[in-house]
Amino acid sequence: MISEVIKLYEDRNDVTLTTYILQDSPQLLAGGRRPAIIICPGGAYLDCSDREAEPVAMKFASMGYHTFVLRYSRYGTEPDGTKTDFFGQASAPLPKEHCLYPTHMREIGKSMLIIHEHAAEWLVDTDKIAVCGFSAGAHNAAMYATHWHEEVICGFFGETANSDTPGETAFGKEKFRPAAAILGYTLSDYLLMKEAVLASSPEDAAFFGLSNTAFLGEAIPTDEKLLEVSPARNVTENTPPTFLWATSADAMVPVQQSLQMAAALADHHIPFEMHIFEEGAHGLSLATPASAGTKSQINGDAAKWADLAGCWLEKRFALPVPDKNAE
Amino acid sequence: MISEVIKLYEDRNDVTLTTYILQDSPQLLAGGRRPAIIICPGGAYLDCSDREAEPVAMKFASMGYHTFVLRYSRYGTEPDGTKTDFFGQASAPLPKEHCLYPTHMREIGKSMLIIHEHAAEWLVDTDKIAVCGFSAGAHNAAMYATHWHEEVICGFFGETANSDTPGETAFGKEKFRPAAAILGYTLSDYLLMKEAVLASSPEDAAFFGLSNTAFLGEAIPTDEKLLEVSPARNVTENTPPTFLWATSADAMVPVQQSLQMAAALADHHIPFEMHIFEEGAHGLSLATPASAGTKSQINGDAAKWADLAGCWLEKRFALPVPDKNAE
Repeated sequence: MISEVIKLYEDRNDVTLTTYILQDSPQLLAGGRRPAIIICPGGAYLDCSDREAEPVAMKFASMGYHTFVLRYSRYGTEPDGTKTDFFGQASAPLPKEHCLYPTHMREIGKSMLIIHEHAAEWLVDTDKIAVCGFSAGAHNAAMYATHWHEEVICGFFGETANSDTPGETAFGKEKFRPAAAILGYTLSDYLLMKEAVLASSPEDAAFFGLSNTAFLGEAIPTDEKLLEVSPARNVTENTPPTFLWATSADAMVPVQQSLQMAAALADHHIPFEMHIFEEGAHGLSLATPASAGTKSQINGDAAKWADLAGCWLEKRFALPVPDKNAE
Repeated sequence: MISEVIKLYEDRNDVTLTTYILQDSPQLLAGGRRPAIIICPGGAYLDCSDREAEPVAMKFASMGYHTFVLRYSRYGTEPDGTKTDFFGQASAPLPKEHCLYPTHMREIGKSMLIIHEHAAEWLVDTDKIAVCGFSAGAHNAAMYATHWHEEVICGFFGETANSDTPGETAFGKEKFRPAAAILGYTLSDYLLMKEAVLASSPEDAAFFGLSNTAFLGEAIPTDEKLLEVSPARNVTENTPPTFLWATSADAMVPVQQSLQMAAALADHHIPFEMHIFEEGAHGLSLATPASAGTKSQINGDAAKWADLAGCWLEKRFALPVPDKNAE
């Protein structure tokens, strides 16, 4: 295994892509290329939770996929890598330039480019790269899944044209196309989220405002801006097949956020699968001891999502296992 | 993750312990120590199969355990690391000093010492180290499990006394005690194996002779020697709880080898669990695409063994997940 931490910006320590590259062997795929999964941990754009990072990478690695954990820009970590106690601030926190929208989804784009650059060395099947995330990380993955082909992402990297020659090194914006998205207890509709939060407690409203300041630069963004950052409102034929899971008991991100995304995918005839478990709080990650920081984060029912995702992935991400080996 | 390759002998490249050390976090175990599993791939003491190495490590890592792949001494790899084509040799292959019994099980002992040395740095719970193996690797793990407390292993490392002060750095031979053994399609009784092979084909007899030469230095060892290297004949109260799995269709290592081991464990009141699947050839490893080199090495039924092993392990290897975290 090649497990290393790659900095996305030379002069910054906060944004990193951690690799978990599986070792091939003549006894395994004998040079066959593996699909890859980019994992975006959640944390309200304030943090990237370690619980939704390496444990999830290990789960997908156990299925034979290369995995990557992207710790994208976030409010609670300065560019030099030091963590700040954002809860200890004044009641009206100030936005921070280094972690404002749309930088987070562009960092997924940058990760795609890094994987493409190393594809031959790492034996990655670049037609089969999925984006996966949890909570705000799922939102980031969903934003990428619905915007990858637009000026804001591929245009930013100078790749706007479709290539006539797929398979060549430079094949334009197709380089950015994700093959699948896996979204755990995602946010998908910020207008709906705003309504839900306003109908909720002052504490929830304050937290939503803090997260909005971190993500968009202001506690109460315009509805136009909220629409723009709502993946469920931006699904197109370019959105990849999607796997959604959530718990209906989630008190922090209402399950309606997953339902809204599912409806949008259905409306646009994008293949999707969704599993909603009845019990379980927000932020379960794998819902096993391997990803738990407290016993309450273990839930045997919800833990079934990862194997269900594996079955769903296998239909499009089957490993190139030879029919017969040379022996 | 710390994934690195540690040489067991400074002047040799063939014997290595590959680490897969999970990263802790204040959001995960917050300094709590994890159990560990040492994995011995199979290969008839001629090879260490890559199919029974990293893919298995990933499976146990996904359960939250630190994992280690031990590539022990083997006939097909010279001390400098070059592979030799042992099948291309004359019909009566010569023994090689560097890979003769009892070196293989001592290398598990050496691995235990390495893990103990790094336990604080890696956050390993040294009371919870399991040995796991497949085929000849399972035999090696079972030999270790039945001989760790004897002169041949702990005595070799100069640790023969039981310590009166467990918990101290030097606590004698207890350092070598494995907490559990996980044996996939194991060999356990060489006398029984000899009978089965003699009743089988000349090809099987030739292969058994080659493996015996690799392991014991002669194609037809004495019955006394065969008894000595039969874990099923050497179970004592010092043998750890054991998980066995196999397929009854295995044409290379008869399922009786697992049954014999189970009977010996039962006779000595050692807790054990065994799962025998009806179908599937020898050497399935995880029996999933992640460990397959050919499609015939994928078997959905047999693949259930690993999660069954996970459930069994959890009873004694539960991660120290806090009741509540600090938040």
